[in-house]
Amino acid sequence: MRILFALITCIFFTLFVSAQKKLSGFFPANTQKQLDYEKQFDAMISTSNQDVWMKFLTSRPHHIGSEQGKANAEYMAGFFKKWGYETELARYDVLFPTPKSRSLELLGDKPYKAKLEEPSLKEDGTSGQKSEQLPTYNAYSADGDVTAELVFVNRGIPADYEELEKMGISVKGKIVIAKYGGSWRGIKPKVAAEHGAIGCLIYSDPKDDGYVEGDVYPKGPFRPEQGVQRGSVMDMPVYPGDPTTPGYGSTKDAKRLDRKDAINIMKIPVLPISYQDALPLLAALEGPVVPDAWKGGLPLTYHAGPSKAKVRLALQFNWDIKPLYNVIAKMKGEQYPDEWVIRGNHHDGWVNGAADPVSGLVAEMEEARVIGELAKKGMKPRRTIVFCAWDGEEPALLGSTEWVEDHADELQQKTVAYLNSDGNSRGFVGFSGSHALEQFFNEIATDVTDPQTGVSIGDRRYAKSLADASSTSKAKMMGNKYMKIGALGAGSDYSPFFQHLGIPSANIGFGGEGNGGEYHSIYDSYDHFTKFKDPGFKYGSALAKTTGRAMMRLANADILPFEYGILVNTISEYMSDLRSMTDQMRIDTDIENKLIKDNIYDLAKDPTLGFATPKAKGSVPYLDFSKIDNAMVQVKARAESLKSSLVSPEKINPSKIVSLNKILFQAEQQLLFAKGLPRRPWYKHMIYAPGFYTGYGVKTMPAIREGIEERNWKEAQEYIEIVASTLMQFSESLQRGVDILK
Amino acid sequence: MRILFALITCIFFTLFVSAQKKLSGFFPANTQKQLDYEKQFDAMISTSNQDVWMKFLTSRPHHIGSEQGKANAEYMAGFFKKWGYETELARYDVLFPTPKSRSLELLGDKPYKAKLEEPSLKEDGTSGQKSEQLPTYNAYSADGDVTAELVFVNRGIPADYEELEKMGISVKGKIVIAKYGGSWRGIKPKVAAEHGAIGCLIYSDPKDDGYVEGDVYPKGPFRPEQGVQRGSVMDMPVYPGDPTTPGYGSTKDAKRLDRKDAINIMKIPVLPISYQDALPLLAALEGPVVPDAWKGGLPLTYHAGPSKAKVRLALQFNWDIKPLYNVIAKMKGEQYPDEWVIRGNHHDGWVNGAADPVSGLVAEMEEARVIGELAKKGMKPRRTIVFCAWDGEEPALLGSTEWVEDHADELQQKTVAYLNSDGNSRGFVGFSGSHALEQFFNEIATDVTDPQTGVSIGDRRYAKSLADASSTSKAKMMGNKYMKIGALGAGSDYSPFFQHLGIPSANIGFGGEGNGGEYHSIYDSYDHFTKFKDPGFKYGSALAKTTGRAMMRLANADILPFEYGILVNTISEYMSDLRSMTDQMRIDTDIENKLIKDNIYDLAKDPTLGFATPKAKGSVPYLDFSKIDNAMVQVKARAESLKSSLVSPEKINPSKIVSLNKILFQAEQQLLFAKGLPRRPWYKHMIYAPGFYTGYGVKTMPAIREGIEERNWKEAQEYIEIVASTLMQFSESLQRGVDILK
Repeated sequence: MRILFALITCIFFTLFVSAQKKLSGFFPANTQKQLDYEKQFDAMISTSNQDVWMKFLTSRPHHIGSEQGKANAEYMAGFFKKWGYETELARYDVLFPTPKSRSLELLGDKPYKAKLEEPSLKEDGTSGQKSEQLPTYNAYSADGDVTAELVFVNRGIPADYEELEKMGISVKGKIVIAKYGGSWRGIKPKVAAEHGAIGCLIYSDPKDDGYVEGDVYPKGPFRPEQGVQRGSVMDMPVYPGDPTTPGYGSTKDAKRLDRKDAINIMKIPVLPISYQDALPLLAALEGPVVPDAWKGGLPLTYHAGPSKAKVRLALQFNWDIKPLYNVIAKMKGEQYPDEWVIRGNHHDGWVNGAADPVSGLVAEMEEARVIGELAKKGMKPRRTIVFCAWDGEEPALLGSTEWVEDHADELQQKTVAYLNSDGNSRGFVGFSGSHALEQFFNEIATDVTDPQTGVSIGDRRYAKSLADASSTSKAKMMGNKYMKIGALGAGSDYSPFFQHLGIPSANIGFGGEGNGGEYHSIYDSYDHFTKFKDPGFKYGSALAKTTGRAMMRLANADILPFEYGILVNTISEYMSDLRSMTDQMRIDTDIENKLIKDNIYDLAKDPTLGFATPKAKGSVPYLDFSKIDNAMVQVKARAESLKSSLVSPEKINPSKIVSLNKILFQAEQQLLFAKGLPRRPWYKHMIYAPGFYTGYGVKTMPAIREGIEERNWKEAQEYIEIVASTLMQFSESLQRGVDILK
Repeated sequence: MRILFALITCIFFTLFVSAQKKLSGFFPANTQKQLDYEKQFDAMISTSNQDVWMKFLTSRPHHIGSEQGKANAEYMAGFFKKWGYETELARYDVLFPTPKSRSLELLGDKPYKAKLEEPSLKEDGTSGQKSEQLPTYNAYSADGDVTAELVFVNRGIPADYEELEKMGISVKGKIVIAKYGGSWRGIKPKVAAEHGAIGCLIYSDPKDDGYVEGDVYPKGPFRPEQGVQRGSVMDMPVYPGDPTTPGYGSTKDAKRLDRKDAINIMKIPVLPISYQDALPLLAALEGPVVPDAWKGGLPLTYHAGPSKAKVRLALQFNWDIKPLYNVIAKMKGEQYPDEWVIRGNHHDGWVNGAADPVSGLVAEMEEARVIGELAKKGMKPRRTIVFCAWDGEEPALLGSTEWVEDHADELQQKTVAYLNSDGNSRGFVGFSGSHALEQFFNEIATDVTDPQTGVSIGDRRYAKSLADASSTSKAKMMGNKYMKIGALGAGSDYSPFFQHLGIPSANIGFGGEGNGGEYHSIYDSYDHFTKFKDPGFKYGSALAKTTGRAMMRLANADILPFEYGILVNTISEYMSDLRSMTDQMRIDTDIENKLIKDNIYDLAKDPTLGFATPKAKGSVPYLDFSKIDNAMVQVKARAESLKSSLVSPEKINPSKIVSLNKILFQAEQQLLFAKGLPRRPWYKHMIYAPGFYTGYGVKTMPAIREGIEERNWKEAQEYIEIVASTLMQFSESLQRGVDILK
C-alpha cells in the first residue's frame, strides 16, 4: 500500500515536472524530445576516453610547428572522421619566433647568471623531454642585447608608473622587472617601452602561484622555484593572429607585411624568468621600499630600484614561418545546413599542455563522439555542428584568427553562435559571453549535475558565491539564483568570432578547486593534471555535458534562444556605470587638486624619502550622453516588442522561421562599427573588447570607457555618437524581427 | 613706505591675534601670561640633553632588578633634585620571574634545536653586553617541560580558533605557535590554554616587523632574522601589578598570595622566538594550507598543522622577589598644593630600551628641567607638578600599579590628571585618553610646531590623515581639522590611574615615521634609535613641548579645562555603535543560520579538504537599553547646563573655584563601579578597559560590549543597568558643578 502510493506519487511527480519543463527556444511539442536526447547524451559521456586522449595528446611537447602538434591534429581528425564528421586539416602559414639564444646576467659585485631552465622531475613522466621542449621565452619579444640598471615596476601597468613617478623613479634607459599577473603579460613590456625602458623581465612571484599559495610541485600543484611561465607578448589588444597578415587569412600565398611594419610585435626584448632567477636581481635593487600592494612572497625587502649593479639581457630569435593545422569537423544539419553552431578549443600547448589546453579539448572530443554516436542512431542535429581544434592559440590566437579572417563572410552569414573552452578543472562553472544568451545558460546550469555534490552546477555555483560573499552582499544575494554571466575580454579563440565578427560567443569552463602553478611550464603535464586538477576527469565530463547540451539546444532549437532584452539591460548597466565613473572621477579630481593646492601631500609625506608631490590634473568635463540615452529608449522598446511577439513561438508561421532565426543570430553583428575602436580597427564590437592597457581584462563600451579612463574627452565624446549609431542599427534589426512576426 | 606698511600690518596682526587667542581654562586676563611662559619654555627645550641622557640611560641593560636599573633611578633622582624637585625613590618588592633554563627542539626526521639567542652586531655598541642581557623569554610563563605536536594558530585570538574548528583541527594536548601582533601577546597563551593547548610559542613574522616591512638591522631598522620580542604574558586584562598583591601596594611587609593562587599568571609554558627559529618549526607543519590572512612572509607554505614531528618545550624560571625603584619628583604648587598634575614614563627596559622607554623618558626629563629652571626664575606652577619615572612597567606595569594602589585614596582626592608617554619617534602626534580633555588637546596641537614642516603638529596630523584617507572619506574630512582623540586600552602606566581609579588620563606620543623591528630586543639601542627613529631628537623636543605645555596649562589654569559635553557625546557614539553592532549581529546570525540550514556551506566547500560545516548559533535577542537612554538624557542636559554656567569663567566667585575644580577633576571617578567589570574587579571604569580577549586593544563600554561579543546576553543586560547607575552618579556630580555656580 505504502509502496504503491509512493510509486503513484513518483509517476505523477515525473509527469508534472515534465509537463512543467520549458526550454528556451523549443516549442512545447519538441521539448520532451530534446530532453530525452540530452538524457541519452549524458548517459554516454565517458571519463575514460578523456584519460586515454589526454595521455596521447600530452605525450610530447605539442606547440605550433612541432612534430607532436601535427600528429595530434591528425590523431583528432582520425577520430572526428570515425565519428561521422566531414573533417579537414586547415593549414595556415604564420610567423612564429623561437629562441636562438637567451642570456640574462646581473653584473656588479654579486654577479649572477640566470639559469633560464626548468629542471625535470622524476615524479613527472614528461618533464625530461628536453630536446623537444620550447625554452622559456616570450614569443614576439624583440631581438636585442641591452645592459642597464634594473627597476621594479610591480605589475607594470600604467597605475604602477604613476606610483613610480611619486617615488621620483624613471625607467628611461633602464631594464624593468615586473611580476606576472594583474594584466595580460604583453601589457607589461608595452607600457615599459612607452616609458622609455629598453628591456623587460617578467617573473612569477611565489605569492601569485608559488609556495605562498600552497605546496609546490611535485608535493603540491604550485609553481616550483625554477618554474617559468612562457607566453606571448604580441600586442594582441591591437590585433591578434599572424602579425604580418592583419585582417586576412595567412594562406600559403597571402601577401605579408614586412615584419618591421607589424605594429603589434614588441619593441624591446622581453624574457620570463623563475622566482629563483628573480631573487638575486630583486635583491640588487636599491631605492625606496615599495608600497605594500607591490610586495611579493620572496624572503627579501622589495625595493623599487634602480639597482646599482647593471643587468645584461641578450635575446635572439628565429623568425620563422611555421605551418599550423586547425582541425575542422562538420556534421551537416538535417534541417538547416546553413546555420552553424561552432564549438572550439585549441590543441597547441606551450609544452605538454595538459590543463592548457588538453583538458578542455578532450571534453570537446567527448561531446563530438557522443553527438556522432547519437547521429548514427538517427538523431542527427537540425543545424550544422562544427567542432574545431585550433592550432597556434598560445602565440597569438593564430589558428582561429586566420581561419576566421579567411572565412569571415561565410561565418557572419551562417554562424548562430561560437562556444569556446580553454582548459578545465574541479570546481565551479563559469560562463562569459554574449548577454543575449544569459537566460539560455541559466537553464543549462540548472540541468547539469555537479559531480561532487549531486546538486545542479548552477546551485553549486550559487552556493559558492553566497558562501564567499560579504555579509552585506549575502543578504542581497539570498534566494536569487539567477546567474549574471561575465563579459568577454580576450585570451582565447572566441576573440576573432566575437570582437572581430560580432558572432554571439561564450567561454565555458569549470575551475576554482584545481588551482596550481603549472601554467605554461613543462609541469603542465598529464601527471600534474590527473593528480591535482581533475582526477578521474569528473569535471571533464561535467564540461562535456554543459557545453554539449548548449551545442545541441542551439542546434535543435525551433526559435533561437537569444533574449536581447537582457543584453539591452546589461548595456544600460554599463552606461550607468560609465556615468558614475565619470562623476566619481570629477569629484576625485577636484578633491585631489584641492589637496595638492592646500599642500596636504607635502605636509603628510616623510621628508627624508624625498618623494615627489602628485601633480594636479585637468578637471573632468560633463560629457553629452544624450545620443546614447535616446538610442537606448528605442532599443529597449523594440527589444520588449520582440520579446512580446515571441511569447507563443509555436504559433509563428513556419515559413518565417528561417528569416526570423537569421535576424536573431545576426543581431549582435549590428553592434559592430566598421572602422573599429580607436587605433585598433580589428576590434569592431562596440560593447566588448580586451582593454588596451589590461589585455585579458574586458572593457565594456571600450572606446568610451578607455577615452574616459585616459582622459581623452574628445575621443570619448566622438565614440558616444558612434556607439549611439550602432545601437540604432541594432535597434533596426530588432524591429525587423518584430515586423516579420506581425 | 612699503616696509613701514608691512611693519604696521605685522604689529597690528600680532596684537589682533594675541587679543583673539583663547586658552581653555584661563581667564582672559591670565592668558597672555601663560602664553609668554610657554614661549620661554619652548625656547629652553634642548635636544642635546636628551642625547646625553639617553646615552647614559641605555648604556647597559636596565630591566627591573638590574644594577643599571637602579643606577638609572638614582641618576634621574639626582637631576630632579638639582632642578628643584622634592624627589624620592619609591621602592616596592615584586614577583619578577627570570629564566633558569630554556630549551626548544623539533624532534622527528629533521630535528632542529632552537638558538634562542640574539647575536651581537659590530654596528651596535651595546648589543654585545651578553652577561647583563635578559635572555629571550616571556615573563610570567609557567614552568614546564612539554612534548607534543605543533599547531599554527595565526594570531591566537578566539576568531582564529573558530577558523581552526572549521578546518577540523583541535589544539587539545598540542603546542601552539602563534604570530606576534593582532592582540596583546598575553592573550595568545591564555586562549591557547582555554582550548586545551599545553604549550605556546610566539614568533615575530617578517611580514609584521621584519624584511617584508623594510631592510633589517643594521642596514635598516627592521627585525633581523634572530631578533626576538621579549615581553610579559601575565593576564593583565584581569589585573596588572604584582600578581601576589592584587589591589594593594607590594610594600616590604605586604601580605602576599601564594603564587599558585594568582589567577593572572599564565598556566602553560610560553616562549617567544625569532623567525629564524620559527622557520623549521613552521616547515614541519602538515594539514591544510592556512587562509590568506594568516600567511606571513617566510619563504614556505603556511600549513595549520598538526606537525607529524613533535616539539619539546622546556622552561624553568627563578620566581624571585625583586626590588623596584620608582622615581617620584614633586614641585609643590604655589597656589593649590593639593591639586596634582602628574606626568609619567617608565624607565625600565627589556634590555637597553632606547626607544622603549627612554625616548619618552628623556623628553619628560627635559620638561622637568625647563619647568624647574623657570620655577627658579620665579615662575612656579600654581598646582603641584609630579614627575614620575616608573620601574617594572615591562613585566606588568609593576611600579606604577603598586604606587597607585599604595596611594589610591590620596591620588583620587588630589590628582587633576595623569599624562603618560612610553616611547617616541619621528612622525605624527597621537593623543588618546579622557574625552573630557579632547578640546584641550586640540588647542595644544595647534600651538606646537612640527619640526620637519614648520606647521603645527595638529595641521601635520590632519594632512596625514587626509592624505591617507579613501577618496570617500577625504570629501568628509576636508576642512574639518578637529581631532577626535583615541580611547585608552592598556599597555602602559596610565592603566592604574585611569581604569582603576578613574583619574583623567592621556597617553601622548609621536610616531609613524620611525617604524622598526627593534621592539623588546637587544637592538632597541642608542645606535638604532639615533640612526633610525629620531635622529637629533627633534621629535623628542616636540614631545617635550606638547606634554610640557599640557602639564603647565593644567597646572596654571584658572578653571580646569574639562569639557564633559564631549565625553557625553562620545559615550552616545559608543552606545549607538553598540546598538548597531547588536543589530548587525542579529542580521548576520540569522543569515548564517539560514545558509547553514540551506546546506550552502556544504555545497560550496571543497569536499577533498574535509572541512567541517560551521554550526548554527543562537539568535540575538533585543536588549533593553532604555535605562541608559534615560540616563543619557539627564547626563546630556546637565553637561550642557554646566557648559553654559562656565561661559564667562572670570565672573565666577573666586571662593568657589577650589570646590568647582575639585568637582571637575573628580567627575570621571563617578564613572567607576566599585565591583568592577565581570570577572575582573580591578578594572572599575565603566567606559574604557583593555579587552579581555584583545589585551592592548581598548573596549569602550567594556562590560556591555564584551557581553554582546561573547553572546552573554544576561551579563550584557545586567551591566546596562549598572552602567546606567554610574551615568546617573556622574550626572549628579555635573549637577553639583552647576549648583555651585548658581
